[in-house]
Amino acid sequence: MNARKSVVLCASLLACALGARAARADDMQRPYVRVAQIDVDPAQLETYKAMAKEQIETAIRVEPGVLTLYAVAEKDNPARIFVFEMYADPHAYRTHLETAHFKKYKADTQEMVKSLKLVDTVPIVLGAKAP
Amino acid sequence: MNARKSVVLCASLLACALGARAARADDMQRPYVRVAQIDVDPAQLETYKAMAKEQIETAIRVEPGVLTLYAVAEKDNPARIFVFEMYADPHAYRTHLETAHFKKYKADTQEMVKSLKLVDTVPIVLGAKAP
Repeated sequence: MNARKSVVLCASLLACALGARAARADDMQRPYVRVAQIDVDPAQLETYKAMAKEQIETAIRVEPGVLTLYAVAEKDNPARIFVFEMYADPHAYRTHLETAHFKKYKADTQEMVKSLKLVDTVPIVLGAKAP
Repeated sequence: MNARKSVVLCASLLACALGARAARADDMQRPYVRVAQIDVDPAQLETYKAMAKEQIETAIRVEPGVLTLYAVAEKDNPARIFVFEMYADPHAYRTHLETAHFKKYKADTQEMVKSLKLVDTVPIVLGAKAP
């Protein structure tokens, strides 16, 4: 192996090791919580809500890493929707994005959503009644 | 009873009856969900978070009607905090506001909170893993 090849190999190994470490740190964020704010076309609101409900119920039922999807509408502005999303870890979130039910929901509601704001969060305290 | 007194009495009874009906309709909203968005003075953020954590843990432990208080910080703007609040019904929320621990939190953090936006919501679907 010549010097140049050796440098490239070392750099690749280093990048790989750093990448693996970054991925592990990322996946150690448990749970992984996001807040989505979605503005929906008011004329299509009922259809949108039915589709969101179906997608959420399926995700909760079939995806082990989807812990909470709480969708609520602003009382004084019902076309503005918040979703409090809790996943076991970031990997579970990425898995969710690749599911058939999520992709179907995304495609079917694309024309109904006027704006979508996704906020990545860090939990301070997740207080909930024990079951 | 003269006519005037009778009218006043009738009006009072009617107001009372309507008030009772309104209260019942209000309390039938189960669960009662709110989203709070709080901007905190960055210089006092750690103190604020500790106080919020203590208040939330106490509320969950001692108040039967406080179901969920999920407090999370925006990842890219840690001084912006969201709280997803779920109460058994609106009465449980009003009870919460009168507790010693909430009043203490409110007084102690008053100078730390730069802005507070409270959003009343109507649930669409509250999807969560069964315990």
